[in-house]
Amino acid sequence: MVEYGDHEMLTPDQIIDLSQPLYHNCPSITFHSPPEIRLLQNAAENGWTLEEIKMTTHQGTHMDAPYHLDGYTQTIDQIPIDQMIGRGVFVDLRDHPAGSPIKIRDLESYSSQIIPGSIVLLVTGWGRKRFWTSEWLFNSVWLASDASEWLAQRQVRGVGIDHVSIGGMGTENEETHRKLLKSGIWIIEDMYYPDSVFEHKEWFIFAFPLPLQGTSGSPCRVIAISNFVN
Amino acid sequence: MVEYGDHEMLTPDQIIDLSQPLYHNCPSITFHSPPEIRLLQNAAENGWTLEEIKMTTHQGTHMDAPYHLDGYTQTIDQIPIDQMIGRGVFVDLRDHPAGSPIKIRDLESYSSQIIPGSIVLLVTGWGRKRFWTSEWLFNSVWLASDASEWLAQRQVRGVGIDHVSIGGMGTENEETHRKLLKSGIWIIEDMYYPDSVFEHKEWFIFAFPLPLQGTSGSPCRVIAISNFVN
Repeated sequence: MVEYGDHEMLTPDQIIDLSQPLYHNCPSITFHSPPEIRLLQNAAENGWTLEEIKMTTHQGTHMDAPYHLDGYTQTIDQIPIDQMIGRGVFVDLRDHPAGSPIKIRDLESYSSQIIPGSIVLLVTGWGRKRFWTSEWLFNSVWLASDASEWLAQRQVRGVGIDHVSIGGMGTENEETHRKLLKSGIWIIEDMYYPDSVFEHKEWFIFAFPLPLQGTSGSPCRVIAISNFVN
Repeated sequence: MVEYGDHEMLTPDQIIDLSQPLYHNCPSITFHSPPEIRLLQNAAENGWTLEEIKMTTHQGTHMDAPYHLDGYTQTIDQIPIDQMIGRGVFVDLRDHPAGSPIKIRDLESYSSQIIPGSIVLLVTGWGRKRFWTSEWLFNSVWLASDASEWLAQRQVRGVGIDHVSIGGMGTENEETHRKLLKSGIWIIEDMYYPDSVFEHKEWFIFAFPLPLQGTSGSPCRVIAISNFVN
């Protein structure tokens, strides 16, 4: 096990970024304008370069708080920071058929790792298809609501997926969200998983939203650090 | 030493937030409009609550990349993620007189800890004065450019301060930034330090900006985790 004190020794294969790049007009759900990044001033003319960001709280790699859905009031700043760190369980769903739901049977072989306090990361491979296409928007792999309830019962800390909507674009989406959010389990959507997540046995996940006050979610940076138990 | 595997055991006194709350009209430098948070839709009427964020890349607790200044091209997404983690050195400057610069002599007693790879956190106490006041904006404690150069020579990984401008509001500000940024050392401004940062001997800092592409900075969440070496 690597101790915190050995952080100076972290090599690129011990720390990986699980976040999608955030840029002007990057793909996102069509209901709202995509993120806008505007150059406000440049250093050549003004001494300092500075940009403006305009986006929603649910674009790019982002965390949903329970307040995203009617009936729940916990906002993003009310999620305790110790809940943003946990042991990661990467579920390999890269061969899952397009457009089909992730069911309980797809998760069961990870039962020994999906335990209270763990962070479950659904690796569908759809993070590589992140373009303005009908395929990416409307035909992704998604999490069925009964599988969502199964995860909630196991008291996981959070659930992440490499697509912008964990419940897809159909009518079941709200229920898939509800099963997790009602239990105070955060959701991160629009993650990106390099194949290297499968190279080590143990990864710890650090998922930090912005310290936004009173909002239903936030763009989020997600990092995994391996402790080399292999 | 606590190992990564013991993360489930993190208690509130082992993990602390070093970020200022980010909210509509929160105090920031006057040159640009303050952050705006707008409710786009609410769950009661629309099923889902969702907000819009409009802010610059240098408001709230935020990280400066070298590209912030003329002459340097490293953008926020080009800072390697392993550079965002390091051993924290909290420099106690809470008794430093208002309006006066932090000089090399104020840092020298921390020489044994300010070493290559460390993250230096200047604790001025001005994070508690974060209001729209002329005191906060124009009369803060700030880092002199020769002290900035001293830190750069020691090859620290990054420097943070609990005020919105590390070099204050005078003419020396640019040079204070330049001494660090020219060496590829990031700066985090507008941090918040609870007094508990002084309760343990060793803290590790996790400073995660958003994965913005090509920008000069980013809002940033900064967390400290103690390994209880005490």
